[in-house]
Amino acid sequence: MSATQDDALSANRAFVLHPGGQFTFESRSVPTLDSDRDVLVRVVATGLCGSDVHYWQHGRIGRYIVEAPIVLGHESSGVVVKCGSAVGGLSIGDRVMLEPGFACNTCHYCRGGRYNLCEAMHFAATPPYDGTLVKYYRAPSEYCYKLPSHVSLRDGTLIEPLSVAVHSCRQAGIMQEKSVAVFGAGPVGLLCCAVARAFGASTVVAIDVVPSRLESAMKYGATHTYQMGSASPEQNAIDMLAATGLEDGFDIALDATGAEACLACGIHALTRGGVFVQVGLGKPNLSLPVGQICDKEVMFKGSFRYGPGDFKLAIGLLNSRRVRLDGLVTHEFPFSRAEDAFKNVAARAGIKSVIYGPDADEEEASRGSD
Amino acid sequence: MSATQDDALSANRAFVLHPGGQFTFESRSVPTLDSDRDVLVRVVATGLCGSDVHYWQHGRIGRYIVEAPIVLGHESSGVVVKCGSAVGGLSIGDRVMLEPGFACNTCHYCRGGRYNLCEAMHFAATPPYDGTLVKYYRAPSEYCYKLPSHVSLRDGTLIEPLSVAVHSCRQAGIMQEKSVAVFGAGPVGLLCCAVARAFGASTVVAIDVVPSRLESAMKYGATHTYQMGSASPEQNAIDMLAATGLEDGFDIALDATGAEACLACGIHALTRGGVFVQVGLGKPNLSLPVGQICDKEVMFKGSFRYGPGDFKLAIGLLNSRRVRLDGLVTHEFPFSRAEDAFKNVAARAGIKSVIYGPDADEEEASRGSD
Amino acid sequence: MSATQDDALSANRAFVLHPGGQFTFESRSVPTLDSDRDVLVRVVATGLCGSDVHYWQHGRIGRYIVEAPIVLGHESSGVVVKCGSAVGGLSIGDRVMLEPGFACNTCHYCRGGRYNLCEAMHFAATPPYDGTLVKYYRAPSEYCYKLPSHVSLRDGTLIEPLSVAVHSCRQAGIMQEKSVAVFGAGPVGLLCCAVARAFGASTVVAIDVVPSRLESAMKYGATHTYQMGSASPEQNAIDMLAATGLEDGFDIALDATGAEACLACGIHALTRGGVFVQVGLGKPNLSLPVGQICDKEVMFKGSFRYGPGDFKLAIGLLNSRRVRLDGLVTHEFPFSRAEDAFKNVAARAGIKSVIYGPDADEEEASRGSD
Amino acid sequence: MSATQDDALSANRAFVLHPGGQFTFESRSVPTLDSDRDVLVRVVATGLCGSDVHYWQHGRIGRYIVEAPIVLGHESSGVVVKCGSAVGGLSIGDRVMLEPGFACNTCHYCRGGRYNLCEAMHFAATPPYDGTLVKYYRAPSEYCYKLPSHVSLRDGTLIEPLSVAVHSCRQAGIMQEKSVAVFGAGPVGLLCCAVARAFGASTVVAIDVVPSRLESAMKYGATHTYQMGSASPEQNAIDMLAATGLEDGFDIALDATGAEACLACGIHALTRGGVFVQVGLGKPNLSLPVGQICDKEVMFKGSFRYGPGDFKLAIGLLNSRRVRLDGLVTHEFPFSRAEDAFKNVAARAGIKSVIYGPDADEEEASRGSD
Repeated sequence: MSATQDDALSANRAFVLHPGGQFTFESRSVPTLDSDRDVLVRVVATGLCGSDVHYWQHGRIGRYIVEAPIVLGHESSGVVVKCGSAVGGLSIGDRVMLEPGFACNTCHYCRGGRYNLCEAMHFAATPPYDGTLVKYYRAPSEYCYKLPSHVSLRDGTLIEPLSVAVHSCRQAGIMQEKSVAVFGAGPVGLLCCAVARAFGASTVVAIDVVPSRLESAMKYGATHTYQMGSASPEQNAIDMLAATGLEDGFDIALDATGAEACLACGIHALTRGGVFVQVGLGKPNLSLPVGQICDKEVMFKGSFRYGPGDFKLAIGLLNSRRVRLDGLVTHEFPFSRAEDAFKNVAARAGIKSVIYGPDADEEEASRGSD
Repeated sequence: MSATQDDALSANRAFVLHPGGQFTFESRSVPTLDSDRDVLVRVVATGLCGSDVHYWQHGRIGRYIVEAPIVLGHESSGVVVKCGSAVGGLSIGDRVMLEPGFACNTCHYCRGGRYNLCEAMHFAATPPYDGTLVKYYRAPSEYCYKLPSHVSLRDGTLIEPLSVAVHSCRQAGIMQEKSVAVFGAGPVGLLCCAVARAFGASTVVAIDVVPSRLESAMKYGATHTYQMGSASPEQNAIDMLAATGLEDGFDIALDATGAEACLACGIHALTRGGVFVQVGLGKPNLSLPVGQICDKEVMFKGSFRYGPGDFKLAIGLLNSRRVRLDGLVTHEFPFSRAEDAFKNVAARAGIKSVIYGPDADEEEASRGSD
Repeated sequence: MSATQDDALSANRAFVLHPGGQFTFESRSVPTLDSDRDVLVRVVATGLCGSDVHYWQHGRIGRYIVEAPIVLGHESSGVVVKCGSAVGGLSIGDRVMLEPGFACNTCHYCRGGRYNLCEAMHFAATPPYDGTLVKYYRAPSEYCYKLPSHVSLRDGTLIEPLSVAVHSCRQAGIMQEKSVAVFGAGPVGLLCCAVARAFGASTVVAIDVVPSRLESAMKYGATHTYQMGSASPEQNAIDMLAATGLEDGFDIALDATGAEACLACGIHALTRGGVFVQVGLGKPNLSLPVGQICDKEVMFKGSFRYGPGDFKLAIGLLNSRRVRLDGLVTHEFPFSRAEDAFKNVAARAGIKSVIYGPDADEEEASRGSD
Repeated sequence: MSATQDDALSANRAFVLHPGGQFTFESRSVPTLDSDRDVLVRVVATGLCGSDVHYWQHGRIGRYIVEAPIVLGHESSGVVVKCGSAVGGLSIGDRVMLEPGFACNTCHYCRGGRYNLCEAMHFAATPPYDGTLVKYYRAPSEYCYKLPSHVSLRDGTLIEPLSVAVHSCRQAGIMQEKSVAVFGAGPVGLLCCAVARAFGASTVVAIDVVPSRLESAMKYGATHTYQMGSASPEQNAIDMLAATGLEDGFDIALDATGAEACLACGIHALTRGGVFVQVGLGKPNLSLPVGQICDKEVMFKGSFRYGPGDFKLAIGLLNSRRVRLDGLVTHEFPFSRAEDAFKNVAARAGIKSVIYGPDADEEEASRGSD
């Protein structure tokens, strides 16, 4: 294990959610490396996700319940401060993005190339596993990805939701010259627009109820927008196709809302043989136009987090400048004001809010390495 | 065009449904061959499908409405009586099964290998296209398949629903050593069990509410049965998995019921990464556990009729005796009693009812060509 | 059938190759429409392909032999002058590109989505079927594609080789952020570079022995070039990877040369699990490093012409400006000087030579419809 | 770690090959468990593979060279004698088959579902890694598979080559009702016949030059045999197709010989769009009919060892009795006569030779657990 300043590693400041919804700042012990393939990362920036806020406000997401104090946060970038002896390709000082779910590597899902389905997954900020709103975070080296030199640590945090979008778009199959509808113009929906466009979609229609979000969508890859109205899903589908001149329907629809009306509208708007991808936000039960799914032989796919190659591909899209993240981070908070970041996201202000690490600041977070 | 006895072809007796639900027998003109690739088939036996009965009882299925007199029937076998000059591989006297939907062959679905999605499809017994409850039926030669010598014309009618099962099972991907749940033990469900087993599934669980149907399922490929109870879909899923010892869930589920409780149960019972195929019977709207579809990254696919290679594969399964049809036809009716066949199916008696062609009888329908 | 000036259609000037290699100009009869889905096209421009020149110089390609006079040419654009009554989506005056191989539409390859493998294919300029170096050419309407308004009829002829490149690149699977080697920087190789880049490849290395061709490649999508040397294929593979910084090998290699040294070099340069696509130019027998194919579990695929959706996708790439054709046509000839065009290609001058139709000129061929 | 009789584990008898080709018996130390997921297996039976004999006779296979003493053997079954504390699903006394290549689990091949391509693979009996001709062998628990109760430890050794056959057949895609040619009727070829038949192939033609091997093939799934003659590959292809009545060619060919004439014959005998799988025995360089690969758009795939799910599927085929191994082991040797087993395989006697473990005998090796 490479030597480094052990004094600096003597305390691990953490932002902790307690059952009931209170936050506290605590000093945790600095993680030791469990394996010679592990690295220790000093967290510089963490993007807040709707799921973080949901745990704070509701104490649970489905079967995952906040029963003990937990550190939230899972969209983090940082700097490598320690490397296990068997780590290759990473050095102390490297600017990296963390993939926040560590799979077991040995079950049939992991060995079969679908590690996102691993039942032994340790996913940051999903009870009982602590997240990344800390100073130091340990990770196996294969879960750390070097940032392109032109991408700041602040914008690099967006590689996590970008990987969600990449995974969803890959679920939809080849997108070259296809028409794609994206429901929801929040961070993940915007990134789905960007990825669909980078993957060669000829038409990308962003759909939302909020006009300002639709304006943002046009900056990140959408070729058209459609403001969802109060009519029936069928009627919205008809209107949307008329507005975009796609008489035969969409080849692909991606839903990043989880709203029943959006799912129904999207299925109605698909062409025969179309593909619908539900981007990991499914309500427990929703009414779907199953008759349409049968008659049009639609493929309806769930998409869960990200799997093999998704982070690598996401970073490739940044490297080639085919996806740009500038402007997506609209709010930034020092670690000491982390709770304000949660409030800001709860108020649906802006697009993305980022919290600096305990030992980081705007200056470090906002520059690249060029 | 090969010569044949023109006298015998002078009239085309038909069983006709009128708007409102009355049946009449009529004499239609004998079809001429539209193309030198067409053949004329004397119909020997026609299986009745739930959709035929539905048109009789309700006058419509979705957007397809009986607005003019129509001949029903689309599961027919017969004997070739005329061949266009360019027909290859078929001769007068050949015993054939008809694929009853004629696609346009030139649209992008047809050229792209998904002709079942052709928007210009002429499908027998789907308004406004007449079906096969007639003496003579014209078909392009590529829609006629020679029967294996050991398969009777009566049992050959089952190749149509068998092709539905084949198409559905192919939608599910590789089935070798997989566990498969089949909801519904009517004719299509039973044939799905048979095909799943022939495709190498190690476990095939038939699910129904009627015990006698489950007994039939064990004869046609099911390895286990489960009688669906009145508990919640989640509980039925738990009980079904416990009863069959599949602690990790099913790899694949096929639904041949269209019942909301079955779809929900099947999705709950799937393993992570599982595949659900809805076998062409979708109600317009159903409540589905979309959260499960996302969390388990389920692929939910509609399956519509049959496409490239399905009839050929179905016949191959009969040729190799890996699927057996004996005993599935439980009721037989002469053409003059066709209406009794409709009443019999409406009363849900037996498994499959067959009507002989106007010029055919039990003796001709029940023998092979060996 | 729509009316048009019948006088203008009274003669069909053709450029005819005779067995032995002589060319003549002849007046053929104007084609009649065989079906109400057919259109008649006045040819405006025809690109010459190596295969056209090969028939002229050698009288045969494999089992296809020039045994009777034949019209060559199969890369043609033109203007619709007559439409069958059932033609949809095309009107007289439309500027179109011809897909020059008409499949039977009914065999199992056609119905199964691989019509390029149809054994009854009528392919223009492949004996015994006449090609497009005529004034008027008949085609089923589904083989005619409207040109984007910004693409001239002259450049539109390149859509045929572009579709070859599209088909080959699709054979290689997803290209997003992959590294791709393209052997051969003639017209098809250049277009493979362009398509690979449009499909998202992060690295596209063009390989050739002629430096000027490599310079062209950099204009059409290549990110790197490598001048193949006289060393062994293994050594060239090592040198090429070193020069491009791809230590793990290429994900994908496409060969548009048919040269044994290129195939061997490409297979040696692939990463484990890589894909090699042979772009339709295979010599009868070549020595390949089969041990490498096994040890690295390489997929080696032949690519033959183009199939479902390839022309449509090629045109989409032009529509979206992700592929540009400007400058690829380096030589243009009036119909009366067609033989000079053959001589020019035989001398390997420039990139692409185009011959105007008998009734067309540079002015008509070079403008778009904007 | 579970306790067991430590005395019994005090020595690890091994059969060791030295550079130059001499064998010795040595006492090695008993392996310790490296991880709490490891198990220790007492080897009961080991099948000999051609590669083991090749190392003995030639001292190398390609870039793998016997530079230090090495234990050979990699087709081994045995009994679990020690379990790490985190092992699930296995207990002391379990009869297991070993998957003999341990991958790194963390590289992009492993995470992406192609662990057979892992560059850090530790494969038994491939220099410098010792094989299984020892008393005790350590393995991660996910590489140990319980034997079906009706399969003896002796026959269980065949699960390794059976998994090679499973991997190869899966490379070929869906086999239902397809025609399959298998070149070579040695152990792997015979098992390819068996798997192809179990996977639903309607026609399986075994091809070899030795009549007695062809007789064996008919017992293990072949429906036809063809004795390869001295004619050209093209002529052999024509004769083989005529003899088996497959006028359109084979859908799939698998080569388990590595012989140039077989590869060429197989490619010539494929139908358009056919698939050829080279089963891991490729010579460094072979002349192939690349023109055929292009014109027929053939997919030619290398198949390397086995990957995710192959052992599990192989065992499933035994469980369901769709593959039977009885009679494939034709020669058995006690550990003390291991060298005789090598000589026997070198002399090409029988089908498969098995060596008992140092502490095992025929009685233990030949019974199941029923």
